[in-house]
Amino acid sequence: MNPVDTLAELFKEFPGIGPRQAKRFVYYLMTRSTAHLEELAARITELKKNISTCTECYRFFTKNNVPSPLCSICKSSNRDKETLMVVSRDVDLDTIEKSHSFNGTYFVLGGTVPILEKNPETKIRLRELTNTITAKAKHGLKEVILAMNATSDGDNTVHFLEQQLAPLAEKHSLRISTLGRGISTGTELEYSDSETIKNALKNRG
Amino acid sequence: MNPVDTLAELFKEFPGIGPRQAKRFVYYLMTRSTAHLEELAARITELKKNISTCTECYRFFTKNNVPSPLCSICKSSNRDKETLMVVSRDVDLDTIEKSHSFNGTYFVLGGTVPILEKNPETKIRLRELTNTITAKAKHGLKEVILAMNATSDGDNTVHFLEQQLAPLAEKHSLRISTLGRGISTGTELEYSDSETIKNALKNRG
Amino acid sequence: MNPVDTLAELFKEFPGIGPRQAKRFVYYLMTRSTAHLEELAARITELKKNISTCTECYRFFTKNNVPSPLCSICKSSNRDKETLMVVSRDVDLDTIEKSHSFNGTYFVLGGTVPILEKNPETKIRLRELTNTITAKAKHGLKEVILAMNATSDGDNTVHFLEQQLAPLAEKHSLRISTLGRGISTGTELEYSDSETIKNALKNRG
Amino acid sequence: MNPVDTLAELFKEFPGIGPRQAKRFVYYLMTRSTAHLEELAARITELKKNISTCTECYRFFTKNNVPSPLCSICKSSNRDKETLMVVSRDVDLDTIEKSHSFNGTYFVLGGTVPILEKNPETKIRLRELTNTITAKAKHGLKEVILAMNATSDGDNTVHFLEQQLAPLAEKHSLRISTLGRGISTGTELEYSDSETIKNALKNRG
Repeated sequence: MNPVDTLAELFKEFPGIGPRQAKRFVYYLMTRSTAHLEELAARITELKKNISTCTECYRFFTKNNVPSPLCSICKSSNRDKETLMVVSRDVDLDTIEKSHSFNGTYFVLGGTVPILEKNPETKIRLRELTNTITAKAKHGLKEVILAMNATSDGDNTVHFLEQQLAPLAEKHSLRISTLGRGISTGTELEYSDSETIKNALKNRG
Repeated sequence: MNPVDTLAELFKEFPGIGPRQAKRFVYYLMTRSTAHLEELAARITELKKNISTCTECYRFFTKNNVPSPLCSICKSSNRDKETLMVVSRDVDLDTIEKSHSFNGTYFVLGGTVPILEKNPETKIRLRELTNTITAKAKHGLKEVILAMNATSDGDNTVHFLEQQLAPLAEKHSLRISTLGRGISTGTELEYSDSETIKNALKNRG
Repeated sequence: MNPVDTLAELFKEFPGIGPRQAKRFVYYLMTRSTAHLEELAARITELKKNISTCTECYRFFTKNNVPSPLCSICKSSNRDKETLMVVSRDVDLDTIEKSHSFNGTYFVLGGTVPILEKNPETKIRLRELTNTITAKAKHGLKEVILAMNATSDGDNTVHFLEQQLAPLAEKHSLRISTLGRGISTGTELEYSDSETIKNALKNRG
Repeated sequence: MNPVDTLAELFKEFPGIGPRQAKRFVYYLMTRSTAHLEELAARITELKKNISTCTECYRFFTKNNVPSPLCSICKSSNRDKETLMVVSRDVDLDTIEKSHSFNGTYFVLGGTVPILEKNPETKIRLRELTNTITAKAKHGLKEVILAMNATSDGDNTVHFLEQQLAPLAEKHSLRISTLGRGISTGTELEYSDSETIKNALKNRG
């Protein structure tokens, strides 16, 4: 294979990128200077050099030449240690942080448990989660919020985690909660499903 | 104008119908039998003959040859008289009823109050609403739920009604509530706005 | 069924209208005056009274109190009698007329021949078309343009008509032609299929 | 800026990529092995090392360790030397080649001339094009096909080139042609604009 097709094959594995756009990426790169391509290549190579996975919440974080096993959130003394929010992916954590509506700590599952999945424990960091919860329970943890997507995979992951965490929750008197359902910004009542309306009524304020 | 264009002009006023589709409606009708057109015309003419506007909730309802000023919901002894849900349009009421999650009574505003509207009272049935609330307050009404769309017009209508109903609410010790906001079925956390996340956290269960 | 649902059922048969929009039409009509509904009903009932089907081209046309078996195009002495354009539906004829690029006469097939259709002759006015061509051949007709959609049903209709009209074309020395394929206004080369490019090259000017 | 944001900034410059997807690319890369990232970086760095720009048609081509100023098409003795197709970008050339409907040679302009552009000659390889045409005219060139998009920019580029190439065309008796317009595969007559219909009629076959 020629260099164009070889590189296009690699871009095709990027999330949401089809063969046509992958090729357009390559043609775009060919119009850029050699210096720019070297800059891009360097950033890709170094990506993981400066990035660590936090040993407590498992999110990716920048080391900034300061060796530390913990990310800035887990290290911070300003975060509320009583609530732990479990999210699927780093992007979800980013979205929550940007909303400035949560001041507790996080745990990144690294995936979801699809419906009918035979080996759920291979899809998410279950053992790591129970370890983190056990450790945090000794330091004031009171609530675990399962913050999953309102999709069938998200619902299934909530269901699986509720079962798996039940003994731990009972042992340490932890509340296991989920995100409130209701009408989300921008939606019209007429197009809302019964489940959403039921929750919007239950959670009325 | 010829009969085709004259009728197309009338169809163009239908909600969501442009000139092209209006004309397609006419061509469609020309392929139907004269009997079918007469049937359609008869149903349109008789539409309002069998339909009344309920004097209590202002929704449209079918008379069924039984003269009554009230619709089946307002007449029913099985509906909870303590909660009144205020909706914009009949379709919203239909959607709520289909969700089987509400057993109180309704009030149809007949519209919304757009932002910057100079004469809000001309857009919705405000006087009729205060009359209905005053009357129901004497028969056990405890809460008025403002069930508007989660859009800017909906939010503005809620804001306007809260101001207008405040004296009445105080006088009769009524709770004025709104639909709970949160993540609606099918949405992913990553694409949720800060307002929705804030509410999803507040309403967690 | 109540008047709302009965009428909604009739609107659901309109082209491109689903149950939700059908109901929205009914609610819209309920907000209009009784006079408006009667006007609409009258226009629907009278639709076919003033409309005839042209006995030559089979398009719908307005009678305007002047009884005539022919539409304005077929009656006109300014139209070129040497070319006959065969279209599927009245809307196609309207689109061509609006383009001011054709001055011949038309024939409206009244449908298309879907692929694998067992009884093609029941789907379109085939006998009427051969009659019209035979009659026009005696008065100078030289070319029949099969102006179908560039879709698989359109292509199939062209194929079927070419076969059916072949004997007639030979007998009267008629040219049977089809619309030129090529790049249509607004399209980009990159997204064009091989068939379109082949034709764009063949028809280059 | 941290490594994630720095890399996301570079991906944001990729064609059609917004800030959200740029970040998703970075997160995706973090889940891949260091070996995979090094492979990707190597392919990007080497991209231009093995790629040359053809000195005749200006398309990108793979050198394959065989030093040559010409691409495989320009070098080939099987290509028809009488027709030269001028395209905007390499992707257009790829699309035409895939259609197997053209056997002449190409010239890649490297861009288009937008409407009202003050310095058109800075947007496209005009001098290189006239040089190529002059050289090819001595070896049997008879026709130059301006194969631009059927968009306003494409039309403007055609118009500009026709003016610029007029003296050369006259001097060497060259035909300057453009792609045929017409109904493209998949379109319906009803939705076609007047220009397209006019061309479909002109190019009927």
